[in-house]
Amino acid sequence: MSAYEELERRFRRIVNVRHAISMLQWDLATVMPPGGQASRAEQTATLHVLVHELMTDPRVGELLESAAASDADLGPWQRANLREMTRAYVHATAIDAHLVEALSKGNAACEALWREARPKSDFAMIRPQLEIVLALQREVAAAKAAKLGLTPYDALLGEWEPDGKSAEIDRVFDPLSKFLRPFLETVLDRQATEGAAHVLDGPFPIERQRSLCEKLMGVVGFDFRHGRLDVSLHPFCGGTPDDVRITTRYSENDFTESLMGVLHETGHALYERGLPADWRYQPVGEPRGMSIHESQSLIIEMQACRSREFLAYLAPLARAAFGASGPSWDAENLYRHYTRVERSLIRVEADEVSYPAHVILRYRLERAMLAGDLAVADLPGAWNDGMEELLGIRPPDDRRGCLQDIHWYDGAWGYFPTYTLGAMTAAQFFGAAKRDDPSILDGIRNGNFGPLVAWLRKHVHGKASLLPASELITEATGRPLDPKIFERHLEDRYLGNSSAVAIG
Amino acid sequence: MSAYEELERRFRRIVNVRHAISMLQWDLATVMPPGGQASRAEQTATLHVLVHELMTDPRVGELLESAAASDADLGPWQRANLREMTRAYVHATAIDAHLVEALSKGNAACEALWREARPKSDFAMIRPQLEIVLALQREVAAAKAAKLGLTPYDALLGEWEPDGKSAEIDRVFDPLSKFLRPFLETVLDRQATEGAAHVLDGPFPIERQRSLCEKLMGVVGFDFRHGRLDVSLHPFCGGTPDDVRITTRYSENDFTESLMGVLHETGHALYERGLPADWRYQPVGEPRGMSIHESQSLIIEMQACRSREFLAYLAPLARAAFGASGPSWDAENLYRHYTRVERSLIRVEADEVSYPAHVILRYRLERAMLAGDLAVADLPGAWNDGMEELLGIRPPDDRRGCLQDIHWYDGAWGYFPTYTLGAMTAAQFFGAAKRDDPSILDGIRNGNFGPLVAWLRKHVHGKASLLPASELITEATGRPLDPKIFERHLEDRYLGNSSAVAIG
Repeated sequence: MSAYEELERRFRRIVNVRHAISMLQWDLATVMPPGGQASRAEQTATLHVLVHELMTDPRVGELLESAAASDADLGPWQRANLREMTRAYVHATAIDAHLVEALSKGNAACEALWREARPKSDFAMIRPQLEIVLALQREVAAAKAAKLGLTPYDALLGEWEPDGKSAEIDRVFDPLSKFLRPFLETVLDRQATEGAAHVLDGPFPIERQRSLCEKLMGVVGFDFRHGRLDVSLHPFCGGTPDDVRITTRYSENDFTESLMGVLHETGHALYERGLPADWRYQPVGEPRGMSIHESQSLIIEMQACRSREFLAYLAPLARAAFGASGPSWDAENLYRHYTRVERSLIRVEADEVSYPAHVILRYRLERAMLAGDLAVADLPGAWNDGMEELLGIRPPDDRRGCLQDIHWYDGAWGYFPTYTLGAMTAAQFFGAAKRDDPSILDGIRNGNFGPLVAWLRKHVHGKASLLPASELITEATGRPLDPKIFERHLEDRYLGNSSAVAIG
Repeated sequence: MSAYEELERRFRRIVNVRHAISMLQWDLATVMPPGGQASRAEQTATLHVLVHELMTDPRVGELLESAAASDADLGPWQRANLREMTRAYVHATAIDAHLVEALSKGNAACEALWREARPKSDFAMIRPQLEIVLALQREVAAAKAAKLGLTPYDALLGEWEPDGKSAEIDRVFDPLSKFLRPFLETVLDRQATEGAAHVLDGPFPIERQRSLCEKLMGVVGFDFRHGRLDVSLHPFCGGTPDDVRITTRYSENDFTESLMGVLHETGHALYERGLPADWRYQPVGEPRGMSIHESQSLIIEMQACRSREFLAYLAPLARAAFGASGPSWDAENLYRHYTRVERSLIRVEADEVSYPAHVILRYRLERAMLAGDLAVADLPGAWNDGMEELLGIRPPDDRRGCLQDIHWYDGAWGYFPTYTLGAMTAAQFFGAAKRDDPSILDGIRNGNFGPLVAWLRKHVHGKASLLPASELITEATGRPLDPKIFERHLEDRYLGNSSAVAIG
């Protein structure tokens, strides 16, 4: 067996254990009885430790060196696989076992306390624990930065966004941020003049919502032979490429949120399912980072399914599902509903126009904290000032301010920018796809997602981690990520003077 | 850290990986979409290999030796834990990696082919593959027998029934077998005179069946904070002690089978849940073999819930659940239904009286095959002759003969006797429990299983693997397993002249 072949054998094992962990996490979030908590935590912790041991085995380092020495024998996918194996090995070995343990305990303790502090809006309660988490993240960032030749922030970013660079993020976020503030005011004025959408009156029986969601999942291309839809408190896409598990939660009073949430997760699911079968159990066969993953949920949800075309297709199905009729149920009213813009304090409830401001705020703050330029004690004030600057509203308490998201408290630093990178990438992919295949929009209008999904399979899903995200975008769309494309999409959708323009 | 402490740390890890496997198997049987098959097989195979590697690590052997040298420092549970660790290590290391792999592949191939051969009733199709499985089992048996100082059959039996001995099985099966043949004829004559039970007319909506089953699970003592009831093709009890997952399958036309099946699995579940919390993740904290496990399902199903007492409690609940009334729904008719005896060709459909004959037949045949006294080619004939001798009927085809059970084709040799050992043990436990606590029967009559479960917690569940099964039985009941007790139970139930006698 060659060194490369032995690496494939070892990483196949690692990927399989990770798949097992993913299934156990799905189970925990959907069906596990509450008393299973402690033993489930033991199971997943044990499997994580085994993955870490398999990954950091010194023999892996030796094999990576031998394989690199003879990589002329390898094809392009194998070479990319070797690159991804090396990346994983360097990330895993950059920090020692002692720090891994401190990190795991520190994050768990902080996250648990955050669950108490958030409802009480008590930042002082969590502050010391968040300071510990930050100190650990800075230690990890320094260790990885040294090993990877990156800045500390980019070393953390790279855990979620391989090859991601903050210089590149600044290049696209800075103009976007300048564009958005006045744009938001213009859109709000415009929508104030137009008035609100008609209310969709419930109740909407959950069984009917589920049935409509499953029908639409099928329309978009979800394969129920290889996946399921279930219910969980926080919607997610989990499982494995051959067994993709997505979730939602239903409210009797509003079907629109879970419906669009399911379409969002379906976008993630299509990506997982479309990863190349030949590389199923290898690092190169895994999704290409979080921004590309988010682009796949948002191209389905934001680009395709909040379009007039899709909502024209949806309207009669929704009327039939709930036995409803009247002007509230017109496609145009659904469109107004699904493109409503508001200043909101909460990121996860934010619309497409204001969402980037939430992300840009977090990106700035986490960079400042990691750089030592912002103390944890000053976070609430800096947060509220930032909200005022970027969105023109000030949170009345920390629950609706810097306590709202789990990420920092759970140790996920360097993650936030991927949301907006994903939104911008989605707009750019969708533009390129429509240009390459003019039948795409017509397909969406008729409930035929085949052309869009075929484009995604070819240009995104089937490429997995073959290329860095930036190259993937350039190959698929003909140019690097360009904030103008996202801005144009927003202008068309929110300031378009007619449906024709909005669609164009 | 002492050698013993390091062993605890290592075995805790092994138990946790096994728990993860158990959850993945539950998922496969209940909710997994069909396309998940191949990747699930990879996940569980990978985890099984990891368990095997953790278990056979030479360091474990060294630690076991050091710990044994200083076992004077250990308490009784720790000493028993060391004994169980050693047992697991010897079983795992007795066969080399090459044989482990051959076994895993041979069993999987045979099982897959059996799934085709059984519906076609085509024994010739599966014969060569079964010969391979048998040859491998003989190789395993010889290797383990040499290492454990046992006969080859007892070496295989020990995988399911630690410390089990065929000499001991013969001691109890031989008289039982002599008793049963004439007893069966007497019961059949008696029931022919009495006539059949009134038919219970359906349909029985599945949602109502599920609801009744869950109610009864709660009555018996199932803790839904630590477990679930779901649906699968073959009912089972899985999961972990803190998260016990039982399953059933429903038929619209008959609620009686799934109801009693659920009570059976609830018995297994109570055992798992009652294992000592302090030893949750150690070998000594695991169930004490398959015969004790089966005794716990059968004490709930056969001893407690097919009694007149329980059926008097059940009758009004069943009437209310299905909105039914009339003489079919009297407790006495339910009792006749649930104690109906028939000559049947299929083990899993057999009643309490004829079931042991099915087991004794399989036990004799697998011993003969392993000893080389019966060729696989001669199995169908020997099976049919045995059925005629033991039950007085001859299968018309192999589908209803030697092809009916998965066990041999899947590599589970030495398992069958535990079913009937479990039935006998259940009768003996139930007798002792009623003697120790006269309130038990009254409790069952009133839907209060507290006294029975308390007895089981103290004498069985809480003991886990502290003692060999034979000692556990003797300590709990005051005597070794005694076939007369099971025979007396059958006589009371099936030939009792009045309800008073049947109950007594």
